[in-house]
Amino acid sequence: MNLTILFGGSSYEHEISIVSAITLKKVLKRTQLQFVFVDAQRDFYLIEPANMTSKHFSSGAYKKAKQLTLQKGGFVIPGRFGSKALATDAVLNLIHGRDGEDGKIAAMMTFYEVPFVGPRLEASALSYSKLTTKFLADSLGVKTLPFEVLHRDDPRQIEMGYPVILKPVHLGSSIGVSIVREAGELDYALDVAFEFDDTVLVEPFVEGIEEYNQAGTLTNEWELSIIEAPHKEAFLDFDKKYLDFSRDEQVRAADISGELAEQLRATFQRIYDPMFRGSIIRCDFFVKDGQVYLNEINPIPGSMANYLFDDFEGTLERLVRHLPSEPAITVDYQYIHSIQSAKGKA
Amino acid sequence: MNLTILFGGSSYEHEISIVSAITLKKVLKRTQLQFVFVDAQRDFYLIEPANMTSKHFSSGAYKKAKQLTLQKGGFVIPGRFGSKALATDAVLNLIHGRDGEDGKIAAMMTFYEVPFVGPRLEASALSYSKLTTKFLADSLGVKTLPFEVLHRDDPRQIEMGYPVILKPVHLGSSIGVSIVREAGELDYALDVAFEFDDTVLVEPFVEGIEEYNQAGTLTNEWELSIIEAPHKEAFLDFDKKYLDFSRDEQVRAADISGELAEQLRATFQRIYDPMFRGSIIRCDFFVKDGQVYLNEINPIPGSMANYLFDDFEGTLERLVRHLPSEPAITVDYQYIHSIQSAKGKA
Repeated sequence: MNLTILFGGSSYEHEISIVSAITLKKVLKRTQLQFVFVDAQRDFYLIEPANMTSKHFSSGAYKKAKQLTLQKGGFVIPGRFGSKALATDAVLNLIHGRDGEDGKIAAMMTFYEVPFVGPRLEASALSYSKLTTKFLADSLGVKTLPFEVLHRDDPRQIEMGYPVILKPVHLGSSIGVSIVREAGELDYALDVAFEFDDTVLVEPFVEGIEEYNQAGTLTNEWELSIIEAPHKEAFLDFDKKYLDFSRDEQVRAADISGELAEQLRATFQRIYDPMFRGSIIRCDFFVKDGQVYLNEINPIPGSMANYLFDDFEGTLERLVRHLPSEPAITVDYQYIHSIQSAKGKA
Repeated sequence: MNLTILFGGSSYEHEISIVSAITLKKVLKRTQLQFVFVDAQRDFYLIEPANMTSKHFSSGAYKKAKQLTLQKGGFVIPGRFGSKALATDAVLNLIHGRDGEDGKIAAMMTFYEVPFVGPRLEASALSYSKLTTKFLADSLGVKTLPFEVLHRDDPRQIEMGYPVILKPVHLGSSIGVSIVREAGELDYALDVAFEFDDTVLVEPFVEGIEEYNQAGTLTNEWELSIIEAPHKEAFLDFDKKYLDFSRDEQVRAADISGELAEQLRATFQRIYDPMFRGSIIRCDFFVKDGQVYLNEINPIPGSMANYLFDDFEGTLERLVRHLPSEPAITVDYQYIHSIQSAKGKA
C-alpha cells in the first residue's frame, strides 16, 4: 500500500500535526509512505521521508522542498516539462483542528475525487463544533453532559453551579480550556477562551469522573480498539496533550466489566455509523453511575490513536480498501432539453 | 466591480444553476462578469459571456472553452508560456445543491483565500441538511414544524397524522418531495425520496398555510428584501421551481401587517447573523395562528432572489466590499522549539 500522509495546516494544532505525522512514520512499518505538508500559508510541499523531523519544519528548511498543486485525482508535481501526478492509494488526512477537522480537506478530497482516510464533509462540520456534536449525540440517543453557551457579547454569568469547565466551541487539544472553581475565576477563563473562539461551551466539571476512550473504524467489518482509561490529572493541558500526540506504544486495556465495555462499544458504533465511515475516530466517554456520556469525538485523533489498536497498520490497510465515495449524479440536461423543445429551439 | 459567477457542479440542481447564471447575466448590468462553469465531471471552464446560453452547455459545446485550475488566490488559466491568474474582486458561488450548498465550494474558496459571496463552510453544512437546519433553528429559538425521520432501513411507518410531506434530507428545489395524503401512498413516496437520499424528513402538510419569503444580507448594515407571498399550488414541482430560477422581474411586497413583517424580518436576522455572513440567503417561512415557523433556508437561492430586492446589483456590490474572512492563525513553532530545548537539540 502507498499512503500519502497530509499534515500541518493553518491550525492552532499545526505543530501537533507534525508530531502526529512523525509518529505515524515510526508506526507504519510496511506501508510505502509519502508526506505532503501544508504550511501555515497553505502551500503544499512534498517532504522527503528522511526530512520528517520537527526541526525541518520549525527551521523553515521545508521551503526548499517541491511544491505541489491539488487537482482532479490528486496532488500534482509541476515541472518544467509538464506536470506529474503523485500516485497513491489514498491520502490520510492528519491535519488536526482547522482545515483538517472542520471539513476543508474532506471537501477538497471529495470534490477532486481523491480516495482519503478521514471524516467526510458533514461528519467533519458536525464534530468540529462542540455544539453540533451535542445535537448529533442527542439525535442518536447518546447522552452528553448538560451545558450552557456563552457568546462573546453575552452577559458573563452562568446558571449552573461551580466547578465548571469552559471550552471554546471549535478548538481541540484542550486549547483555551479552563476549569473554573468559583464565580471570581469566570471572567479570566472567558478571556482565555474568547481568544480562540466567539462561542464558549460551559459544562459541569465533575472531579474524578471515570473516563474511557474507544477508537475504531468500519472496514468490511467493525474494527474496534481496546478501551483505555486515560491517565489524567485535573485535565491534560496543551503541553501534555502535545506529548500525547507522539504516543506509539500500545497501551493496556482498562480493567472494566464486560457489561460496561459492551455499552461503550455499542455507543461508539451508534456514533460512528454511518456518519463517520471512511475515518478512524476516537470517542472519549465519561461514565457516571453506570451511565455512558459522550465527552468528545476526535475525528482525527492524535497519531490516529494507533496505540489503542492490536494491529493498527492492518486496520488502516483494510480501511483503505473500503473507503466510501459520493454517489454519482448523472446530468442529462433533460430539463434544458424540454424547455428548448417547448420554445421550439431544440 | 469584477465578479466571477461560479455555476454548474456535480449536483441534481446542475441545470437550474445554469439557468440561475444566465438570469444573473441579464440582471447585473454594470458589473463586469466572468463565468466559470463546473461541469458534471467537476472540470472548471472559463465561459465567454456570449456563450451563456443553455444550449452551449446541454450540447457539450462548452468543452471547447479554456480549462482552469484553482490555486491559492483564485482560478488560473494554464498556458504554454506560463499560467495566468483570472483576476476578480470576488467569486459568486451560484452552484445550487451538492458541491455549492454542501460546503465544498466554501471550503475550497476559504482554503485558497479567494474572496467569495456565499455561505461559509459551517453555515453550508448545517443548512444543507434539513435535520441540522432544525437544530440550528431550535438553538436560535426559531420555531419549525414538528418532524419525524426515516432512514432507508427503518420500518416504513410514521407516528403523525396524514397528510404529511416527505423530503429527502439533503436535496433542494423540491426534488424527491411528495405530499402523502393517506397511509397507502406512503410506500411509493418513500421509494421516490430514497432514490435521492438515505434519510427522509416527514412533516405535517398543512393545506393553505400562509407562506412568506424574506431574502437579505448584512453589508455594513442590514439589507433586507421585500417580503413575498409566493404563488403556490399544492407545492411547486421541479418543473415549476425550475422556471422559478429564471425570475428576473421585481415582485410586489406581500400585503401583510407591519407587525407580521417586523416579526418575519427579526426572525430572518436571528437566523442570518452571524452564521450566514458573506451570503445572500432567502428564508421561507410559514405563518400559522400568528406564529412564524422557519420552513427552509436557501443559502444560495435561485438567481440569488434578485427579484425581491429594490437594488440587487447595489446590494451585491456592497456585500463584495464587506466579505468576512477567516481569522489568521500564527504558527510560531513554540512547542517544537521548547521540546527541542528540553531535549538539548535546539
